[in-house]
Amino acid sequence: MVLGADGYLGRPLSLHLLRLGHEVIGVDNLSRRRRVREVGGRSAISLGNPYIWYNRVNELHGGRFDWRIADLLEGEEVEYLFEYYKPDAVVHLAEQPSAPYSQIDRKHAVDTQINNTIGTLNVLFAIKKYAPDCHIVKLGTMGEYGTPNIDIAEGFITITHRGRTDTLPFPKQPGSFYHLSKEFDTQNLNYTCKTWGLRSTDIMQGVVYGVVTDEMKVEGSIDMYDPALMTRFDFDQYFGTALNRFTAQAVIGFPLTVYGEGTQERSYIALRDSIQCLMIALDNPPKKGEYRVWHQFDKVYSVMQLAKLVQTVGKEFDLSVTIQKIPNPRVEASKHYYNPDRDHLPAHGFKATHTIEEELRITLPILIKNKDRILSKKESIMPTTDWREAK
Amino acid sequence: MVLGADGYLGRPLSLHLLRLGHEVIGVDNLSRRRRVREVGGRSAISLGNPYIWYNRVNELHGGRFDWRIADLLEGEEVEYLFEYYKPDAVVHLAEQPSAPYSQIDRKHAVDTQINNTIGTLNVLFAIKKYAPDCHIVKLGTMGEYGTPNIDIAEGFITITHRGRTDTLPFPKQPGSFYHLSKEFDTQNLNYTCKTWGLRSTDIMQGVVYGVVTDEMKVEGSIDMYDPALMTRFDFDQYFGTALNRFTAQAVIGFPLTVYGEGTQERSYIALRDSIQCLMIALDNPPKKGEYRVWHQFDKVYSVMQLAKLVQTVGKEFDLSVTIQKIPNPRVEASKHYYNPDRDHLPAHGFKATHTIEEELRITLPILIKNKDRILSKKESIMPTTDWREAK
Repeated sequence: MVLGADGYLGRPLSLHLLRLGHEVIGVDNLSRRRRVREVGGRSAISLGNPYIWYNRVNELHGGRFDWRIADLLEGEEVEYLFEYYKPDAVVHLAEQPSAPYSQIDRKHAVDTQINNTIGTLNVLFAIKKYAPDCHIVKLGTMGEYGTPNIDIAEGFITITHRGRTDTLPFPKQPGSFYHLSKEFDTQNLNYTCKTWGLRSTDIMQGVVYGVVTDEMKVEGSIDMYDPALMTRFDFDQYFGTALNRFTAQAVIGFPLTVYGEGTQERSYIALRDSIQCLMIALDNPPKKGEYRVWHQFDKVYSVMQLAKLVQTVGKEFDLSVTIQKIPNPRVEASKHYYNPDRDHLPAHGFKATHTIEEELRITLPILIKNKDRILSKKESIMPTTDWREAK
Repeated sequence: MVLGADGYLGRPLSLHLLRLGHEVIGVDNLSRRRRVREVGGRSAISLGNPYIWYNRVNELHGGRFDWRIADLLEGEEVEYLFEYYKPDAVVHLAEQPSAPYSQIDRKHAVDTQINNTIGTLNVLFAIKKYAPDCHIVKLGTMGEYGTPNIDIAEGFITITHRGRTDTLPFPKQPGSFYHLSKEFDTQNLNYTCKTWGLRSTDIMQGVVYGVVTDEMKVEGSIDMYDPALMTRFDFDQYFGTALNRFTAQAVIGFPLTVYGEGTQERSYIALRDSIQCLMIALDNPPKKGEYRVWHQFDKVYSVMQLAKLVQTVGKEFDLSVTIQKIPNPRVEASKHYYNPDRDHLPAHGFKATHTIEEELRITLPILIKNKDRILSKKESIMPTTDWREAK
């Protein structure tokens, strides 16, 4: 079961699972579409009617794809889903995923914390009642940790204090109402594994970039993608991730807007490698009662490094890319230590398949074909929400 | 401003503030009354109509008490309150305070997490917008920490890991959906102090016991209490705290029901000393942008120690008290290390005024007068919610 199956990760993950022969139930409430419209954004890739997408995918994969529109806030509906399908595993991607969106005003902060925390809580109850052996792969974010001055251990850290020792959850310092909501999930998840014997992989994922995966290719083609299979690509200030926003700016000839000095470091991973990681988690489920945390990223970059990579690769496509520093609307340290561990995924065989440069060489030509869609919403890119203010 | 002014702590705190000459605005949505009725419980002390209470208190204190029925989930109403009153300080006691209540079923877990997390979030937004210098004294609970195998530092711990050092939030291991909700509050509070420059004291309080404070006495009397000024006293399985439940059981001649072996240790504080602590926090506000954590308890006891204290003091009142071990409905370690720090409050002058024995000598005769009220709801005492199950 893929929760959030209509989203950026949900679409390619569903395709990948189906290609491997799995039966997949996709669930979504289409709220990402609504929210991106609300903030004046638009996916650079046209998505179309979700029923058309569902039918196309289902035909391609011998009727192994089922598709339900449902809202995780409706606890009773969620229970019906789990009671009926009793999934072996659920990948939970169905959250409001934008930090700046959660900072717009009180209503957006409340919406984000209710949507994410209570949606997940309803899923946990449904699993305990109707599919207690189900492996829950839950998408968290590296951003839950903030930027501590010590190496970030994968979920748990052994602390010696006044001569005694315990292994405890790694302390979190989430930096937005969104990141806080993800940390609340983490705690509900850990608690229900411990108390109810559920099993879960909590994925702390880096920032994702890229627009396609191999499953979206037209049968037999090397570089032609089937528009009906593609996923969304957001570039607005709220739902566009740093590298994706830069790529869109490069395509329409706008300066890449680096927040602050651009020295703030984060971890990143390509869309296709994110799918690879989720599959590794699914193929290696934890035992009953186990709650484990995996850090899911490829490499750490500063924002300025990303901008410069886009500038360099942009030249290969005759794009003249400039970089502009703008005041940072976020509240975050500009210079800081940042060294998260990443041992579990490589130990299970993860290898990144594409460098950022290679991924950019795939992304840029696709976005260039959709330049008009980006241009038509160009005013959605520049930040207008100041995290220091409360509205 | 006292949020939750109609509650167990809110009533005596309001009285105490008024006696000291402060202007007090009491806010409550009366949900505690509703929830206790819902679970078949009843306060051993009759509360009566809250308007009668309000008028009596206001008359006694020269019109310095204002009283509003409002729900913190209504963000706009909360903003009107803070815009109009612009309080110097707010003591936030307005939460669903019962762990077992949050474990009843999905709806109660969801209700608790929304009520507490979003109620507090609305207060934080209102303060940032309309009273940014206001000191927020927020009632948390020692239970947020669980029972780690190391000493529990007050809020923050300095960790050295692979040769680097940082001071980070003390890792939490909340043991119920209620305790989780309190930890979510803690994180929202810490975040808004850091990002918006709010100032807050996050009180991690032990389990409170007792039924009266000095302000409830009839003018000039040593041991007569004014029924119109008293606070609630719950003894049901959901809202009765351990020692209060034992006291009620002793009064009606029921065995004291100790969960499990009774070796689980927690920290405790008398109602009157809890009020003393809250006053110390109010009199010593943190600076702007500061988020601080204070541990608010007197001593650590095992559940069995409490039961034996009730047994001993009960004899003085001719109560024949027996102790009965029953299966623990909670999921918690029966034997564990437990040593929380408590430096801030004593450093600011806190001294416990009553031992448990002394407080029991005050509580028991008052409850004996209300024996019929307890007897009429005796079936509400025994636990029926099993924390291992999900309903």
